[in-house]
Amino acid sequence: MASVIKVNLPQQSYDIAIAPGSLEQLGEFMTNLHLGKKVLLVSNPTVFQLYGETAIASLKAASFEVASHILSDGEHYKTLASIENLYNTALENRLERSATMVALGGGVIGDMTGFAAATWLRGINFIQVPTTLLAMVDAAIGGKTGVNHPQGKNLIGAFHQPRLVLIDPDVLKTLPIREFRAGMAEVIKYGVIWDAQLFAELEASQRLDEMGHIHSELIDTILTRSCQAKADVVSKDEKEAGLRAILNYGHTIGHAVESLTGYRQVLHGEAVAIGMVAAGQIAVELGMWTQQQTQRQDVLIEKAGLPTKLPAGLDIEAIIEALQIDKKVKAGKVRFVLPTQIGAVTVTDQVPADIIRQVLVRM
Amino acid sequence: MASVIKVNLPQQSYDIAIAPGSLEQLGEFMTNLHLGKKVLLVSNPTVFQLYGETAIASLKAASFEVASHILSDGEHYKTLASIENLYNTALENRLERSATMVALGGGVIGDMTGFAAATWLRGINFIQVPTTLLAMVDAAIGGKTGVNHPQGKNLIGAFHQPRLVLIDPDVLKTLPIREFRAGMAEVIKYGVIWDAQLFAELEASQRLDEMGHIHSELIDTILTRSCQAKADVVSKDEKEAGLRAILNYGHTIGHAVESLTGYRQVLHGEAVAIGMVAAGQIAVELGMWTQQQTQRQDVLIEKAGLPTKLPAGLDIEAIIEALQIDKKVKAGKVRFVLPTQIGAVTVTDQVPADIIRQVLVRM
Ligand SMILES: NC(=O)c1ccc[n+]([C@@H]2O[C@H](COP(=O)([O-])OP(=O)(O)OC[C@H]3O[C@@H](n4cnc5c(N)ncnc54)[C@H](O)[C@@H]3O)[C@@H](O)[C@H]2O)c1
Ligand SMILES: NC(=O)c1ccc[n+]([C@@H]2O[C@H](COP(=O)([O-])OP(=O)(O)OC[C@H]3O[C@@H](n4cnc5c(N)ncnc54)[C@H](O)[C@@H]3O)[C@@H](O)[C@H]2O)c1
Ligand SMILES: [Zn+2]
Ligand SMILES: [Zn+2]
Repeated sequence: MASVIKVNLPQQSYDIAIAPGSLEQLGEFMTNLHLGKKVLLVSNPTVFQLYGETAIASLKAASFEVASHILSDGEHYKTLASIENLYNTALENRLERSATMVALGGGVIGDMTGFAAATWLRGINFIQVPTTLLAMVDAAIGGKTGVNHPQGKNLIGAFHQPRLVLIDPDVLKTLPIREFRAGMAEVIKYGVIWDAQLFAELEASQRLDEMGHIHSELIDTILTRSCQAKADVVSKDEKEAGLRAILNYGHTIGHAVESLTGYRQVLHGEAVAIGMVAAGQIAVELGMWTQQQTQRQDVLIEKAGLPTKLPAGLDIEAIIEALQIDKKVKAGKVRFVLPTQIGAVTVTDQVPADIIRQVLVRM
Repeated sequence: MASVIKVNLPQQSYDIAIAPGSLEQLGEFMTNLHLGKKVLLVSNPTVFQLYGETAIASLKAASFEVASHILSDGEHYKTLASIENLYNTALENRLERSATMVALGGGVIGDMTGFAAATWLRGINFIQVPTTLLAMVDAAIGGKTGVNHPQGKNLIGAFHQPRLVLIDPDVLKTLPIREFRAGMAEVIKYGVIWDAQLFAELEASQRLDEMGHIHSELIDTILTRSCQAKADVVSKDEKEAGLRAILNYGHTIGHAVESLTGYRQVLHGEAVAIGMVAAGQIAVELGMWTQQQTQRQDVLIEKAGLPTKLPAGLDIEAIIEALQIDKKVKAGKVRFVLPTQIGAVTVTDQVPADIIRQVLVRM
């Protein structure tokens, strides 16, 4: 039950390999990539304690020379200062051009390791071993890497494609339930924006809110189809010139919610869930899709244990204002990704503020 | 008397424009590149005092919104800390994806500005306005950007191609004479490794050691042919996979000399001059070219007021040892670029240590 998805890029293509138990074969998976002997495994204490030993054993069995670097756990440490520490470890271990950094962790570890790999000796090899659902279906694919600036998320970064993304669904068993659900928001997103078949499979499932209650075949489908969706989009638009914008479905209002709640109270995936509910309603108001379609989406969101309402106490005018300063604003116009049917969206900057307000008031 | 050289790259090509007085037309040169309105001009106090006003006036005349950031002067400040300051200015001025950073200065300013542009919002537009001879013929072309790690030069960096390199030879009039000569070392290098015609033109000139004593037509030839040489090499090998190695002619022993003298006593170009003399002798010892050819090279180096001997007191065994830890060493073998005729070189890791020793003892 192993699937391989190809990400085709003009300069360098790579595989996303999805297979239960594959963490034990990490070293093997890396042997055909013409990598140098030296590997720096980057992780955080939580993930390293659970999976570090398995990863290292597999790398050593495949004759890699392994060093490791443990970054503190949490978005709070996604900083340039953490990257400086990583550079020091790279230097101590004399990582040369042919060396490889392996990210073992969620999106935070993946983004930071990728950025360090992008900028050490002007770019060394980089492998993603995502361990959260969000990182598996989203963050690990597409080559966006980076860290936060004290005054803004992901302002500092680089495009640097991994040589391989290795997904072992088994590691999701230890993922906190809330993190699992947050990842499911992005999965539902792919269903709405790109893959009606995935949407249908999600609809057919009894539950979506807990790993333990989802059939392993559906987990495989979720991972495979989500990764395929992201791979399709990024192959068509590597550097975010156009199409890639559709991946921001639910993220316009989502980002406003995250930023107004200080990036703590609401997880990214939860904010995206709220944003998709709002975007669906806006599309209905604009006559782009039907009340019935948006309800089908909202049912999935609820089934995944995700919020469909704005957090209590959030000021609607503050949201409208926050939309204006989002970095996706072009020439003062707020850009929305809106569904036109299940599996297809359109991008528009023609949403009247009144409609946004009206929809938010009802939430 | 304006020349334009095209750097052809698969993802994005760009022009190197060479014209006396062109700094006054910086804004104009930038108008056809589809850049956003916002420009951040990056310079140092020395260069900004001389040319900042002209650059800014020209940018404003072309309707750009200009902010500036002044970095301290010197290799010593080529650090990640300086880049953090640059990010802060980028944020204060709300530089978006469409914004442009313009580097006005020598290689230090160019490398740092390029790195900041490579990593701000995962890459924004970047323009090189080199003001040293070395930056004009070498550092500004090819997309290598970066900063130093406390323990090694240029260890942190990224490939990020400029959208334009604008060269105004007139600014060389204020360049300290020693810096001018250091740049001339790289010019002579292109003559030896790539362009026999350039070599011949340098031979035909009475003097090469001072801007004021070189005919302006020869300055134009020097700039045009050197930039063409670098452009040829980097277009054929954007990411330093092979051919680009020939640009390291003179740099193997040159780097060892620089590092052993603490990067202060000897300028980079001076070290390269010494390295070329050594490499020429090694090639003679190996029967690859003739004593007469190496003498023709050394005459040029002397005519440019550059050193041809090792700095007094430098230990030869220390040089041999330093060669081993240079980052260009692959699997323990020291890689040398050696001339086979005027205008052509070969790369080899088959130079016996005895020959290196023998040649150095004579210097
Ligand atoms: N590069 C991209 O394209 C992209 C896309 C989306 C998000 N991101 C970034 O990803 C980050 C969010 O990633 P995330 O949601 O994975 O959060 P995360 O990396 O912080 O992981 C969430 C938590 O789960 C823990 N964890 C991870 N795997 C585990 C496992 N298997 N078992 C038990 N605990 C585990 C982590 O230690 C952490 O505490 C953000 O910084 C965001 O900017 C990047
Ligand atoms: N990116 C590359 O491919 C590449 C290639 C070669 C060198 N470099 C880098 O370039 C740097 C060296 O560059 P450099 O030799 O230009 O040194 P530099 O940038 O330090 O400039 C030398 C000095 O000249 C001054 N100066 C510059 N232009 C002037 C002018 N027109 N009039 C008066 N003073 C002027 C500067 O303020 C400085 O004090 C090193 O950091 C090196 O690593 C990069
Ligand atoms: Zn997201
Ligand atoms: Zn050089």
